[in-house]
Amino acid sequence: MRLTEIFGANVRRVRKARGMTLETLATEAGLAYSYMGGIERGQKNPSLNVAEKIAKVLESDPATLFCAPLKAE
Amino acid sequence: MRLTEIFGANVRRVRKARGMTLETLATEAGLAYSYMGGIERGQKNPSLNVAEKIAKVLESDPATLFCAPLKAE
Repeated sequence: MRLTEIFGANVRRVRKARGMTLETLATEAGLAYSYMGGIERGQKNPSLNVAEKIAKVLESDPATLFCAPLKAE
Repeated sequence: MRLTEIFGANVRRVRKARGMTLETLATEAGLAYSYMGGIERGQKNPSLNVAEKIAKVLESDPATLFCAPLKAE
């Protein structure tokens, strides 16, 4: 799994766990809705500063958003 | 500490632990020497793809390079 895909999947998982819409996350992170959707799908290649802004909105330690999902047993 | 600074400090620490020169890391990651130095100093804002290439050269899990250093007791 590419790092962009790992990051996107984790952002989506945490966003949903916080009951936050994609629109709210995009707005609060200062990003376009379509760009934010592309990040979640692993189709965009954001910079570390953008990743940090997203992590801040999600109140998450950025490092946790880069952890690959544990492989199913 | 900014994420770019955390990443840069971790890259430098791991590179040195592997006895690798900045030049070798830059060359193997396909990056300019000066840009690589700027990343290590936390002065550049690399993309996730660039961070992933650097982590691969350092044989490190990318997530570990985003972990903030533990605060001294």
